[in-house]
Amino acid sequence: MSESGPAADGGAGGGPADAGGVRSMVQRWKMDGAPARARLLLRALAWLFSLLALVVMASNQHGGSQDFREYPEYNYCLGISIVAWLYATAQVLRDVHRLGSGRDLIAARKASAVVDFAGDQVVAYFLISAMSAAAPVTDYMRQAADNLFTDSAAAAISMAFFAFVAIGLSALVSGYNLSMEALV
Amino acid sequence: MSESGPAADGGAGGGPADAGGVRSMVQRWKMDGAPARARLLLRALAWLFSLLALVVMASNQHGGSQDFREYPEYNYCLGISIVAWLYATAQVLRDVHRLGSGRDLIAARKASAVVDFAGDQVVAYFLISAMSAAAPVTDYMRQAADNLFTDSAAAAISMAFFAFVAIGLSALVSGYNLSMEALV
Repeated sequence: MSESGPAADGGAGGGPADAGGVRSMVQRWKMDGAPARARLLLRALAWLFSLLALVVMASNQHGGSQDFREYPEYNYCLGISIVAWLYATAQVLRDVHRLGSGRDLIAARKASAVVDFAGDQVVAYFLISAMSAAAPVTDYMRQAADNLFTDSAAAAISMAFFAFVAIGLSALVSGYNLSMEALV
Repeated sequence: MSESGPAADGGAGGGPADAGGVRSMVQRWKMDGAPARARLLLRALAWLFSLLALVVMASNQHGGSQDFREYPEYNYCLGISIVAWLYATAQVLRDVHRLGSGRDLIAARKASAVVDFAGDQVVAYFLISAMSAAAPVTDYMRQAADNLFTDSAAAAISMAFFAFVAIGLSALVSGYNLSMEALV
């Protein structure tokens, strides 16, 4: 939150051991540079937005035809939100582990960069596809009646779009990392 | 068509000047290597499929409600097919010019690689979005009636999907080229 540097971050830790752990993590953080930090932030945003998308969509059951399970587009959107959330969870945990220990769960740096890039790409394609499929049916229903069901669907679709933006930008950073790997 | 090398290609040219032009083009072609050839092929495929998508969709007018202009999803799909076709045309012309003259229309190699990568990415996202939006309404209509209108729409959507696959793979090659640029 504050921009006052590692001293302030270290002071935020509880005991001396905590402060040391936080400090070493912050050091690695700084060493990894802006792209790694930006990508972790983008993946955390994608995690948040895909979680919101799946929770809002999965709870969108108001009886009768106002149930997301009645519409294949909404099932698709929910399924892809779950996939995106699992992917973002795995990647955030991997990024945090890498920043904490300095070691990657995937041993080869080049392979790791390729997995990052391919994964971000595929999940971004799935998310834009899912939200594009779910948008028209929502639009048709809102022309007839604007209620809690359609509003919740629109909210879930918007969250899926924000998750797409975050993962798509993360794919750009992964592409940049992949090109940096070519230098090693 | 034949795999017998530059001699056979040179022999296919008309006069001596033609043969020299073809030979020098084939030399550059070989120098640029497999990625450049693969990408030109992928972009030519994307050009073909996006042209088919836009022609099939634009001619899908059979009177009454069987008119693509009645459905916003189909208008979106047509619009994106036109954008993708214009993009593929420009990129194929640029690739051919580059292979013929050895010079790129965009002077800086790094900037050229970034434009390739960003353009392929954005067009791929638009194509998957357009075909995902148009697919559900076609599916609903085909559950009620399976006629020339819905078949043509399905064909146009399939062509847009193939164009997406070609441009998406071209984006991977562009990403590879971008990482090779980092080596220069």
